Amino acid sequence: MRILIVNPNTTASMTEKAAIAARLVAATGTEIIAATSRMGPVSIEGHYDGALAIPGLLTELKERAGTYDAAVIACFDDTGLEAARSFADVPVLGLCESAVATAGFLAQRFTVVTTLERSRVLIDNLVRRYGMGERAKVRASDIPVLELEDEASGAIGKLRAEIERALSEDGAEAIVLGCAGMTDLARELQEIYGVPVVDGVAAAVKQAEALVSLGLSTSKRGSYASPLAKPFSGAMSAFAPMRAAG
Amino acid sequence: MRILIVNPNTTASMTEKAAIAARLVAATGTEIIAATSRMGPVSIEGHYDGALAIPGLLTELKERAGTYDAAVIACFDDTGLEAARSFADVPVLGLCESAVATAGFLAQRFTVVTTLERSRVLIDNLVRRYGMGERAKVRASDIPVLELEDEASGAIGKLRAEIERALSEDGAEAIVLGCAGMTDLARELQEIYGVPVVDGVAAAVKQAEALVSLGLSTSKRGSYASPLAKPFSGAMSAFAPMRAAG
Amino acid sequence: MRILIVNPNTTASMTEKAAIAARLVAATGTEIIAATSRMGPVSIEGHYDGALAIPGLLTELKERAGTYDAAVIACFDDTGLEAARSFADVPVLGLCESAVATAGFLAQRFTVVTTLERSRVLIDNLVRRYGMGERAKVRASDIPVLELEDEASGAIGKLRAEIERALSEDGAEAIVLGCAGMTDLARELQEIYGVPVVDGVAAAVKQAEALVSLGLSTSKRGSYASPLAKPFSGAMSAFAPMRAAG
Amino acid sequence: MRILIVNPNTTASMTEKAAIAARLVAATGTEIIAATSRMGPVSIEGHYDGALAIPGLLTELKERAGTYDAAVIACFDDTGLEAARSFADVPVLGLCESAVATAGFLAQRFTVVTTLERSRVLIDNLVRRYGMGERAKVRASDIPVLELEDEASGAIGKLRAEIERALSEDGAEAIVLGCAGMTDLARELQEIYGVPVVDGVAAAVKQAEALVSLGLSTSKRGSYASPLAKPFSGAMSAFAPMRAAG
Amino acid sequence: MRILIVNPNTTASMTEKAAIAARLVAATGTEIIAATSRMGPVSIEGHYDGALAIPGLLTELKERAGTYDAAVIACFDDTGLEAARSFADVPVLGLCESAVATAGFLAQRFTVVTTLERSRVLIDNLVRRYGMGERAKVRASDIPVLELEDEASGAIGKLRAEIERALSEDGAEAIVLGCAGMTDLARELQEIYGVPVVDGVAAAVKQAEALVSLGLSTSKRGSYASPLAKPFSGAMSAFAPMRAAG
Amino acid sequence: MRILIVNPNTTASMTEKAAIAARLVAATGTEIIAATSRMGPVSIEGHYDGALAIPGLLTELKERAGTYDAAVIACFDDTGLEAARSFADVPVLGLCESAVATAGFLAQRFTVVTTLERSRVLIDNLVRRYGMGERAKVRASDIPVLELEDEASGAIGKLRAEIERALSEDGAEAIVLGCAGMTDLARELQEIYGVPVVDGVAAAVKQAEALVSLGLSTSKRGSYASPLAKPFSGAMSAFAPMRAAG
Repeated sequence: MRILIVNPNTTASMTEKAAIAARLVAATGTEIIAATSRMGPVSIEGHYDGALAIPGLLTELKERAGTYDAAVIACFDDTGLEAARSFADVPVLGLCESAVATAGFLAQRFTVVTTLERSRVLIDNLVRRYGMGERAKVRASDIPVLELEDEASGAIGKLRAEIERALSEDGAEAIVLGCAGMTDLARELQEIYGVPVVDGVAAAVKQAEALVSLGLSTSKRGSYASPLAKPFSGAMSAFAPMRAAG
Repeated sequence: MRILIVNPNTTASMTEKAAIAARLVAATGTEIIAATSRMGPVSIEGHYDGALAIPGLLTELKERAGTYDAAVIACFDDTGLEAARSFADVPVLGLCESAVATAGFLAQRFTVVTTLERSRVLIDNLVRRYGMGERAKVRASDIPVLELEDEASGAIGKLRAEIERALSEDGAEAIVLGCAGMTDLARELQEIYGVPVVDGVAAAVKQAEALVSLGLSTSKRGSYASPLAKPFSGAMSAFAPMRAAG
Repeated sequence: MRILIVNPNTTASMTEKAAIAARLVAATGTEIIAATSRMGPVSIEGHYDGALAIPGLLTELKERAGTYDAAVIACFDDTGLEAARSFADVPVLGLCESAVATAGFLAQRFTVVTTLERSRVLIDNLVRRYGMGERAKVRASDIPVLELEDEASGAIGKLRAEIERALSEDGAEAIVLGCAGMTDLARELQEIYGVPVVDGVAAAVKQAEALVSLGLSTSKRGSYASPLAKPFSGAMSAFAPMRAAG
Repeated sequence: MRILIVNPNTTASMTEKAAIAARLVAATGTEIIAATSRMGPVSIEGHYDGALAIPGLLTELKERAGTYDAAVIACFDDTGLEAARSFADVPVLGLCESAVATAGFLAQRFTVVTTLERSRVLIDNLVRRYGMGERAKVRASDIPVLELEDEASGAIGKLRAEIERALSEDGAEAIVLGCAGMTDLARELQEIYGVPVVDGVAAAVKQAEALVSLGLSTSKRGSYASPLAKPFSGAMSAFAPMRAAG
Repeated sequence: MRILIVNPNTTASMTEKAAIAARLVAATGTEIIAATSRMGPVSIEGHYDGALAIPGLLTELKERAGTYDAAVIACFDDTGLEAARSFADVPVLGLCESAVATAGFLAQRFTVVTTLERSRVLIDNLVRRYGMGERAKVRASDIPVLELEDEASGAIGKLRAEIERALSEDGAEAIVLGCAGMTDLARELQEIYGVPVVDGVAAAVKQAEALVSLGLSTSKRGSYASPLAKPFSGAMSAFAPMRAAG
Repeated sequence: MRILIVNPNTTASMTEKAAIAARLVAATGTEIIAATSRMGPVSIEGHYDGALAIPGLLTELKERAGTYDAAVIACFDDTGLEAARSFADVPVLGLCESAVATAGFLAQRFTVVTTLERSRVLIDNLVRRYGMGERAKVRASDIPVLELEDEASGAIGKLRAEIERALSEDGAEAIVLGCAGMTDLARELQEIYGVPVVDGVAAAVKQAEALVSLGLSTSKRGSYASPLAKPFSGAMSAFAPMRAAG
């Protein structure tokens, strides 16, 4: 089985980190393909960045259509997840949705630790929509996304301080790392704190494998029905569906 | 005061209809400016269309920045609303959010009647996020959006049948029209059914006027903080914020 | 258009303050009429005061029936709002409902700062009923209502301290002032704190104007159906509806 | 122990019916005192009637203060319950709150059957506030309240039809009778349908006895703090609290 | 009337304490029968203990069937409540459900103070299921259950410290004691803190009396339908229902 | 990796069916071990059966401890899931929790179709606790569990009729089969109806594999802390934890 991991921001080092995390947990027989968006922001911090990352994300999914059995969108904001599910005829997984579902099997109460305050409420809204609003709290650790790429930034110290607050103040029984750029830290943090630490990239890869193995894909009835054939104009004209997309 | 109405799909006849509806309710001294997106789908039906309409929407908002005091996004899916609020330094209103808040002042229970099944759950999720999930039901009437532009399509009959079901089966005390393309029908339907019928375009224009009069604009603390300066690449490079956008 | 502002407590200085706030934001062509209840408590602090303020409120609405196009109840507890909506055949707005709907267009998370602890849960219950329970927190600042009429009382210091706690502890992106007596403070506090500060009186006036302009009024189907003709006895006999009231 | 049952409408035959129901279930040693409001509507149908019934209700509670150990408000809308709890220094029970709590011990899912559509949403909002929104449905049976006093009215037939719909369509495991005027019907309906049928008057009497026996009364900290001493003017001046009321 | 109190753990001193508390509040004519489980854990601390206490609980209910008019399960985790309701043809009450319903008549917001952290979320989930999630907070005071049987343990000091935090930090208007082993402390704590303090044993006894007096018992339609006749094997074979159990 | 599937009822043919379903989807390298409870009911229909199935379930988990890397409880009621998670030091999965999480990746709205009415509300309560209450509906198809073992029973016809109602009346975008005994029907029903059909056994096996691959196991902090060492008496004495169990 081939799983396509698309990084919806344009920073290739993050893509590489996600690919490494994915391969570490992939089953025998799963091939991880990694793609970096070629248009849009270098990092996704808030709603504006996120919205403008979607055309780049969909371009990667579209150009590679037919070459993958499932896709993972490698941003914890689940950027473009609903559009991607409507477009694709294979399963598409987001990091936040996968990670909180996974944490739900391990703990009754848990905390998501993300980067900036501007992403905190965005992720909190996702968590509520995914049904975990009564079980999960979201915290920001005041780390710009790209500082996670820079070992000298002090980012890890901030992240650890926030995890410690989650454990002492929230009654957190598990921690979810709320940014794709934290994917390499999960195992070490789990050892340090002695509670499950869930990384979204790894979680999403396993959910993708699960759905493919189960012969399940996105329902095309209702919310995620394939795009209707219609004209798209201007710079978006390449996205016009011919017929039902795929 | 100048209110910019942006139609995020590329069908100019819908923009014109929205502009007429807006001008009918605008206060003395309010100037309505209408813009049609120049890139993206001809109509927005579902998540894929919606996501790809956002760059066109933001382009209109951006190119006209400084010339309007508030903006209205003329699609009932509130396409790109969060990104637009992050971008703009003036208030931005969506039709769904404005219409359900307005209906909430008139009725304890109401029903939104939209077009296609694929939009029903999308709007239902918005309604829940806006806090009206316990008070409002969403129904689809099986009308493709552009049929609303065609008098011979039978669309109005389908819409009326669905309103009648809302009144008899849901205990609806008011009706919200769940598509910008229905904006011209509100007053007539209100007369026929004797309950408040809320049109999102008109409701959003009045909310925009209210916010401007009150000296209020989108908070730049937290969720809607202005985009951070960073590179955007490829076809999206024009969207890179210089500094905090506005 | 004529908007009647009824102060449901009997303190005329509060009415005057509300009328000034209303006139500051009213549109050209809107006339603000202000009335002070002539029976009931001098201030509304808790459920007992509130319930006994309703006959005075309804008396003002009733005696002036036919002379106003919409009414605003100038108490943040939305005293008698449901009864008034049932009675009147024009739109009636409450401060709390108007203010939180307005704040919802500006911020994802916000805090209402009210006066006494006894009003805090009462308002929190309103906020939840209006659908903002997941987005808004309510705080009391330990200020008796009438201290807001007394510049030497230290009330403003307490209010500011509570706003500062809302910003630092709640992640509030906007502030709602939770008492009609705070109406004159909104603009100054907005400047000081750099986040939207919403005053209920002003917000309600704009919602009233909006509904009148939109040709919308309270649904008379279901919850707010006009009172049925029936005898009322004793001190309440003057309130007996003749036929459907209005 | 003495329990005061106050009928907040002015129809003495309903008071009598409630008193009979109360005495049927009262413990040895419990004395039931019944009072009928002397001011306000003959029946409570909707928000307007309800608000104007409160002064009459509070008058009965006040004039008899010191002569009862707990009070029951004999209207299913829980008219004035919060004001009465703030006023009294003994426990006060409402029919709706008592009945749905009682039903909750008997069934996971149940249906409240009330009189008019205008009361349905009002009661539904109470049920949600009392925490039973996910477990209970509310139905109206289109019976004006006073028809329950008239055996020839056909009211019982309408009520039974609605109970049958609750059983077949809602999966109701128990029925709550949603009007004080139905109190005499509970046992017979329970026999007919073979499911628990809960009457609010009887339920509230037992909750009142329970609280008195347990030495528990309304908390005077927070929401239900005693009214603060302050002037009340006009027709309401008799309601001014001297000091903390009681 | 005879009320059976079953202690689902095997510590007879706790049973005795519960029986004393029950007799203190029982009505004239109510006989309290107390039974201690003869199989299972000495105390119930968490899900594992609780699940394994159920056969012992059901054994007591079963062997005494026909000799009691209602039953109370004397553990705040409401251990086996749903199974017991399905089994018995008389009302069965749990401490948590009874206590939070009782507190709901006294206060808008309250806090449950329980023993160990491992029980906190378990009880919080019950509180939410019983509909009090928006009104009640649950706190653990780090007291092993059996320390409550040992006066020298310091348990009361820990409990008092937690109650004080509930009052100062949660805005609690009342306190619920979240362990059957605290039943003897309620009255004293109520005097100390001046807010209602609800004990689950006493509350459940009064609810049991109420249901019996009202002629109400668990619905046998739906959730709590009597067990179907079927073979049970091995160590559980004695539990096989013959026909509908009772 | 070795995954233990425990059937908590004593019907070996159901265990066999579950094992077959599990092996069909297991990854290369996953060994499925299947165990049938040796004490308790032949089928689990309602709360009484479920509670009495837990000792048998825990016995299988306990006796085999150390021989499996994860466990699946093969009953859709998630019988004993919380106790099992507290006991085990490897991940434990339930069918309902796994299936609804899986369906959540495929559809915004879906319907669970289970067997008897007595299980419907039980499962509905699980679905709400797992956070899917706003997205999923639960239906009963009036099939006794063991009829699923009998091809001549007409069970499949009833199941199909209920699925068809879910599709036409609920707007279901996917179907979850709500009984372990339906595990063999998923693929065929998916082909017939053209929407995803999720089987809990298969879903749980994949979640178990995922957690093991990710190096994640149940948090031992808080809700699922290991049982404390303490005496268990009587028929349950074998379940006494020595130290923290495992």
